[in-house]
Amino acid sequence: MQVKVKGCARDFRTVTYDVERNTVDLIEQRLLPHQFEIYSAKDYVDTARAIRDMVVRGAGAIGATAAYGLAQGARAFSGNRLDRFQRHVSEVYETLKSARPTAVDPVNAMNLVREAMRAGESVAEQQALAAAAAEEFAEEDVRHCAAIGRFGAKLIREGMTVLTHCNAGWLAFVDFGSATAPLYAAQQRGKSFHVLCDETRPRSQGATLTAWELAQQGISHQIIPDNAAGHFMQRGKIDLVIVGSDRTLGRTGEVANKIGTYTKAVLAHRHRIPFYVAIPLSTIDWGLRSGMDIPIEHRDEAEVLGAWGVLPPRPGRSSVGKRVYVRVANATSGAVNPGFDVTPAELITGIITPVGIFKPRELWSNRKQLQAAR
Amino acid sequence: MQVKVKGCARDFRTVTYDVERNTVDLIEQRLLPHQFEIYSAKDYVDTARAIRDMVVRGAGAIGATAAYGLAQGARAFSGNRLDRFQRHVSEVYETLKSARPTAVDPVNAMNLVREAMRAGESVAEQQALAAAAAEEFAEEDVRHCAAIGRFGAKLIREGMTVLTHCNAGWLAFVDFGSATAPLYAAQQRGKSFHVLCDETRPRSQGATLTAWELAQQGISHQIIPDNAAGHFMQRGKIDLVIVGSDRTLGRTGEVANKIGTYTKAVLAHRHRIPFYVAIPLSTIDWGLRSGMDIPIEHRDEAEVLGAWGVLPPRPGRSSVGKRVYVRVANATSGAVNPGFDVTPAELITGIITPVGIFKPRELWSNRKQLQAAR
Repeated sequence: MQVKVKGCARDFRTVTYDVERNTVDLIEQRLLPHQFEIYSAKDYVDTARAIRDMVVRGAGAIGATAAYGLAQGARAFSGNRLDRFQRHVSEVYETLKSARPTAVDPVNAMNLVREAMRAGESVAEQQALAAAAAEEFAEEDVRHCAAIGRFGAKLIREGMTVLTHCNAGWLAFVDFGSATAPLYAAQQRGKSFHVLCDETRPRSQGATLTAWELAQQGISHQIIPDNAAGHFMQRGKIDLVIVGSDRTLGRTGEVANKIGTYTKAVLAHRHRIPFYVAIPLSTIDWGLRSGMDIPIEHRDEAEVLGAWGVLPPRPGRSSVGKRVYVRVANATSGAVNPGFDVTPAELITGIITPVGIFKPRELWSNRKQLQAAR
Repeated sequence: MQVKVKGCARDFRTVTYDVERNTVDLIEQRLLPHQFEIYSAKDYVDTARAIRDMVVRGAGAIGATAAYGLAQGARAFSGNRLDRFQRHVSEVYETLKSARPTAVDPVNAMNLVREAMRAGESVAEQQALAAAAAEEFAEEDVRHCAAIGRFGAKLIREGMTVLTHCNAGWLAFVDFGSATAPLYAAQQRGKSFHVLCDETRPRSQGATLTAWELAQQGISHQIIPDNAAGHFMQRGKIDLVIVGSDRTLGRTGEVANKIGTYTKAVLAHRHRIPFYVAIPLSTIDWGLRSGMDIPIEHRDEAEVLGAWGVLPPRPGRSSVGKRVYVRVANATSGAVNPGFDVTPAELITGIITPVGIFKPRELWSNRKQLQAAR
């Protein structure tokens, strides 16, 4: 069920749980940046569908959505037989897990909720514990992003221009985001600065999601083509780069992130511009020994061959045009579309975590502190 | 007037002059890559309009179009009074010049034609000399591009993958192109290789024009997002880079070319991949002392905020969908859109010219040879 909402988008969290109505309420990200609506999932099957169909995306956000979905599913059970309740909860768990079978965050989040439920001795107690644990998971995500913001804000000085790539913003988390958290924290501290958002082809998350977020927050920003950052760095127009991470290798400090991140790191290194990666602790992989072992997912070539956008609104019609896909490229040519690339530690100035900023090669020696903070 | 054509596009030159019908015939580049049509300009005013409205673009191509347009305008004069004829020719010249007031190629090309006309003692003689000089200008463009192809083909070895950026192809010249000429020459010599075309946002000339050209020529190729070249270089998947140039500084070897060229040069340098620039001699600027003095044109932000493409064809309708502009970006965000960037000599392995391949800093010591070849 979708609800058109009035009011300022920045007052909404990406994911919330309405205990009274037993709904999981999500910012409908498939309509952004052209329309702001709340997708209100009426039951756990609907919540699983929202995860699967990308109503919600981003590590922190889908983790919290799955945790809330499990609490929502548990609460829908009526009766007091614990054995039947547990079978029902297992079914809810599997349904939510299968929505994004390769994602690790929903599973980790739901395991925490299930762990917490064990202390309950009745159905009602377990239902209450599930809701509390899901809420705690979401709150921890918010606290961690806020902490990234506090540490990262110190890097932003008055009058700076900051480059970002893709969207590691509050839309990918419950609130604040990772790469964007330092921007929001610096703004709260009264600093003024400018942000350049890489368009981030082929899915254009910079031009759509990050630009939309920054506009909602009232932060001065402009979109640039992915081709332009090198030129602006050469002309001294960029002072700092902050990006997110999909996977960070605890042993080597290498970072796998959206395609194009590596290119920006190489350019920043040439121009001696600080290059920071902001990460939630859940992205640290303590096992893998080399970034070259990270499998790089290749996505649909249609993303490269065209673009999604809205047609200009017709006079007298709705104020938002119809959303369509247009083919840009030559019809008889194909494309290659790697989703991620790997940036080596030597190109990264620092990694901003919820417990402080580390040199990439110092993650391993600080692993006890970083692992304890989870 | 537009003519739909049948047959293989690669058999057409970008610009031709039909002496019988006194028309200048152009590949209609605004419809590419979705439709192939010939724009047949019926008089010099129509030819000027075609230059102004970007039916034809690219240094070599607009130079030849203006030269042919001057011959076309001269030929339309009836009567034998030389003074009236010369006033008429001046009017033709000014009309064609004003079509793209900042472009230097049409002016240089028309000056050569006017120079040649002086030897004629009658209107008819001058008309014939104009047509011959325009034809010679176009033929020289073809010969120079073919020579770039001969020198550049030696760089392409069997099984290589070559990266290109933007379109410095035959659509930008009368035939062969500059950056693409080595590819076509290598193909003629029976070499097999693969080309990766940078999409080249925001105008996507790589995904539209270069990919279309390569498809017409039957050269193996794929389009990649501008963000992806760094990743492919890191994984050893690119062996050679060839790009074009809008302006090459004869004194320093710096190259101003489409935005994103500098980024590719920085990446190639890091990975020790040869980075070549193919240039027609007309782009060499012997006066300017620093690339930082080249003014960088900023283009319409709408290019960055959206994309041009075709909608999927409706069942039962024409096989080509309607060409539309869609807004991709957040509606309340702006963009910056620099058209060009400057690549320093230290990042350029060699400059491929019609008289041979030079180190960028050796252009100046070879200036006599390079200037004589014009």
